Amino acid sequence: MSNYRAPVDDIKFILQNVLNIEALWQSLPALSEVDFDTADAILQEAAKISQNVIAPLNREADEEGCRWSEHGVETPVGFKEAYQTLCEGGWCGLGGNPEYDGMGMPKSLVAAVEELIQGSCMSFGLAPMLTAGACLAIDAHAETSLKQRYLPKMYSGEWSGAMDLTEPHCGTDLGLIRTKAVPNEDGSYSLSGTKIFITWGEHDMTENIIHLVLAKLPGAPAGTKGISLFLVPKFHVTDDGTLGERNAVFCGSLEKKMGIKASATCVMNYDGAKGWLVGEANKGLACMFTMMNYERLTVGVQAQGVAENAYQAAVAYARDRLQSRSVTGVKNPDKEADPIIVHADVRRMLMSMRVLNEGGRAFYLYVAQWLDIQKYTEDEAQGKKASAMVALLTPIAKAFMTDVSLDAAILGQQVFGGHGYIREWGQEQHVRDIRITQIYEGTNGIQAMDLVGRKTVQANGELLHYLIEEISHFIDSIPADSGLTLNGSALKNSIAELQAITQKIISESKSQPDILGAVAVDYLHFIGYVIYGYLWLRMAHVAETDDSGKFQHKIALANYFFQKHLPQTLSLQRKIEAGVSELLTLSADQF
Amino acid sequence: MSNYRAPVDDIKFILQNVLNIEALWQSLPALSEVDFDTADAILQEAAKISQNVIAPLNREADEEGCRWSEHGVETPVGFKEAYQTLCEGGWCGLGGNPEYDGMGMPKSLVAAVEELIQGSCMSFGLAPMLTAGACLAIDAHAETSLKQRYLPKMYSGEWSGAMDLTEPHCGTDLGLIRTKAVPNEDGSYSLSGTKIFITWGEHDMTENIIHLVLAKLPGAPAGTKGISLFLVPKFHVTDDGTLGERNAVFCGSLEKKMGIKASATCVMNYDGAKGWLVGEANKGLACMFTMMNYERLTVGVQAQGVAENAYQAAVAYARDRLQSRSVTGVKNPDKEADPIIVHADVRRMLMSMRVLNEGGRAFYLYVAQWLDIQKYTEDEAQGKKASAMVALLTPIAKAFMTDVSLDAAILGQQVFGGHGYIREWGQEQHVRDIRITQIYEGTNGIQAMDLVGRKTVQANGELLHYLIEEISHFIDSIPADSGLTLNGSALKNSIAELQAITQKIISESKSQPDILGAVAVDYLHFIGYVIYGYLWLRMAHVAETDDSGKFQHKIALANYFFQKHLPQTLSLQRKIEAGVSELLTLSADQF
Repeated sequence: MSNYRAPVDDIKFILQNVLNIEALWQSLPALSEVDFDTADAILQEAAKISQNVIAPLNREADEEGCRWSEHGVETPVGFKEAYQTLCEGGWCGLGGNPEYDGMGMPKSLVAAVEELIQGSCMSFGLAPMLTAGACLAIDAHAETSLKQRYLPKMYSGEWSGAMDLTEPHCGTDLGLIRTKAVPNEDGSYSLSGTKIFITWGEHDMTENIIHLVLAKLPGAPAGTKGISLFLVPKFHVTDDGTLGERNAVFCGSLEKKMGIKASATCVMNYDGAKGWLVGEANKGLACMFTMMNYERLTVGVQAQGVAENAYQAAVAYARDRLQSRSVTGVKNPDKEADPIIVHADVRRMLMSMRVLNEGGRAFYLYVAQWLDIQKYTEDEAQGKKASAMVALLTPIAKAFMTDVSLDAAILGQQVFGGHGYIREWGQEQHVRDIRITQIYEGTNGIQAMDLVGRKTVQANGELLHYLIEEISHFIDSIPADSGLTLNGSALKNSIAELQAITQKIISESKSQPDILGAVAVDYLHFIGYVIYGYLWLRMAHVAETDDSGKFQHKIALANYFFQKHLPQTLSLQRKIEAGVSELLTLSADQF
Repeated sequence: MSNYRAPVDDIKFILQNVLNIEALWQSLPALSEVDFDTADAILQEAAKISQNVIAPLNREADEEGCRWSEHGVETPVGFKEAYQTLCEGGWCGLGGNPEYDGMGMPKSLVAAVEELIQGSCMSFGLAPMLTAGACLAIDAHAETSLKQRYLPKMYSGEWSGAMDLTEPHCGTDLGLIRTKAVPNEDGSYSLSGTKIFITWGEHDMTENIIHLVLAKLPGAPAGTKGISLFLVPKFHVTDDGTLGERNAVFCGSLEKKMGIKASATCVMNYDGAKGWLVGEANKGLACMFTMMNYERLTVGVQAQGVAENAYQAAVAYARDRLQSRSVTGVKNPDKEADPIIVHADVRRMLMSMRVLNEGGRAFYLYVAQWLDIQKYTEDEAQGKKASAMVALLTPIAKAFMTDVSLDAAILGQQVFGGHGYIREWGQEQHVRDIRITQIYEGTNGIQAMDLVGRKTVQANGELLHYLIEEISHFIDSIPADSGLTLNGSALKNSIAELQAITQKIISESKSQPDILGAVAVDYLHFIGYVIYGYLWLRMAHVAETDDSGKFQHKIALANYFFQKHLPQTLSLQRKIEAGVSELLTLSADQF
């Protein structure tokens, strides 16, 4: 059923031609042995698995879903075998710490592999994604003995990970959690409480599941300063590394969801489950945030990956479906109608999907590059810039990529007409699946508040300065005889507007704090369009200066982005300038 | 589960205070006996049924769906009884021709009732909607004997109607249909072929189902000029009006869809089914289009009605859900967090939903008013304007209302955070249900092509002239000391831009026909925002001049629309000016 083709060539174009990634890797001591041939081989192998093993599961698994019983959660047909294939290929530890048998590959490669896995079946891809996130937190904060005991088996994929944060009464505001952790005499803790929305909290693909759980110690301070992080295994691990007793953490039920139906979204009950503290007491939220930059980027990658899948299907359908004649005359005289790809409105949808998807791909690889620099550079100035860029770009990558990917998937469904609404064809599933990426791992509203509040106003615009400086420098480097100068000027105008609205927000927020929430999402989108514009300009620049001519289509795509998408900043600017507007006029009961 | 409240007060505000509808009705001879008290009583009764009978079915029916067997289609629990309630109340014939026992109520009232029924359960609402559409076509085109035989039973709701147009290989391009109709000696026809996507083509709620079927006569011209319309009953009707033999039209299967899951979407097989010609041979498509203006408006109403339901649920949740503290200080000191309605970003979502929903309500009632004038006026000039307005506004009402209603429903889901993704809470269903309204009854791309092609370029902008004249006249009538002058000026600017881009499109289309498809959707959205702006200005004007002060909140809402939504025209203008851009640059295989 699936005709998904892993977009390896485009990933390589961005990594190699746009980002010159090999030079970066080799400049960072920890990555100096990663060369592009290795990366290429990894991508080719990931392409095979995603196309041949994972993508074929996607449609049927959505219909089948997971099945709960008191004995556990049964996954859809084929998931166990596909997971086994991932494990055998060593994919679960691709970005893991080599000290504990991880492969230590850079995020700029791992993220590309994630696109392929998530894009071919997001429900399935969530399992290795959550495991990788849990490993990051354990690696960064747990005691060595815990790392030794858990990380190698998680990198190998034999055990999976889950992140247990949300409770029925709190998601965004984790300071309200009620799960309790009481110290035991042996240095462990007993956890009691209920967590909800726990992705892959229970399943039959691995022999053990390692939960990272937020809970409160007795007498902990109120709010977010009283949260601690605990490692709670489904099965205890004996000192010789074999599995011991079943722990008192059980899945009470599965949620029925809009999409990602083949993933198990669990209610998890802790009834005196035994766990171990990870990091310092009451610093649990900070420990979770260690892995947030990686996870949030991956959520953007999920959305972009699925939107790519939707694009490919839409193109195939538009070439195949015969309906009406072109307004400029018959194009397909042997048949009773022309393929719909000849119609300008259909092309509009395909081109829009494409520039958003490829812009998104360039964006996530660009952010991943900064994550690698931040993690591995030994140069202080470079490290400082990398930290600023990661802090600034992460909420944008998460929220902007997921928002425009939903738009893209909706277009991909629209191309199919009535068939787009029928489950069998697969396009509506992409819309349903992507929709969660705007919600989980911090809603897009929360991302926008993070961007405009902590990352902009509280930083007095300094993080943004790094980005603007880089983009301005690039625009200035475009030679006057280049075909890109018009787009360069347009982007420069957008940047000037961005600086003006940023100053306005910073200044008005002092007397009117509600302006932050009022403009947050529009502001995030504004910067998102600017970044995509920057990356399209860089892609077009490569195309213009490449002698082979094989990237010429990127120039047309870049022009399309500048003419049909960047202008969105005009209305965003006006909306941001309107500030709080009438948001506070009505009382709650007037709604 | 459902807390849906029929928005009768707001409907009355628009009908009475904004449109002064009673004066209109009483100026039209056929409607002169309809007074506002009658209308009010009808709305109150419709509110009760929608709240108490229909809305409670919505969530469970989505889970249950319809069940197919070779004996027919079984509807979800409660549908039969609810349908019976509709019939007993005479709701199925509300807008029907009184000559055949319809109630002859104006569309400007019927559309409001439709909002309540569709908004409370769209899957269910499709059944009376399709029946009403079939009745319109029969009433307008069938022979008197057919009308006498079928209309009274359809208006009473004892029999339902279905529209059988689409075939597996064609939807938009109906000229390609293959279903055949061969004349019999008795004046009837034998139909053979397969139709797909037939809403409520088979079910157990009524004793008979009357299909209106497009088919081709032997030797008919190719394309759309060779299509004829036939009436094909599920059970034949004997001369004394009782049911006779089962006809050879059967439901082969049901589609599995993204949403409106409780409605039966049927594959219908015709195996020599006996039918009767409706209207002239080979003029079937024109006959179908008789009812299209009504049906397309109702599709917009469906989307708006469901978005209203989503808004109400989002408001209730935002008042109830406690999460984080307001940035301007604690608002709910007795509890551990503030209700999320205090957060500006949450208010942004609620306000946006509201101005889109109430703008949509004003829009559909405004269009319905023109449908009434067109149908009933005896004044030639008024009739001419009404026909122009209906022709111009119908594709906009269908496409713009469904597009912005999807946006609104997505916001309504986002307000719920993670719970918005869980089916139990109902918000994700609204998104899935609304999504079809952008696709069926002519995709929104087709609506946009109709608007920019037939209704704009081919009419040389004359239809638009009526609208612009009316809006300009209204803006000019706003006194200089009014609080609305700023918004009036903004709208005037948008109108000037609209005129400029319209001229540009008309002129460029001569040498570059692809510009139509390239700009169609953006152009439709541009006019949509202008119309909503016009109607918000009229609503604010009523609020400003009303002594009771009870509509004051409408002024804040209007300002919000002007400040946060109308600016969308800025980027649309730029995109439209970019014309064909690079849409034709890539060959089909470069996608």
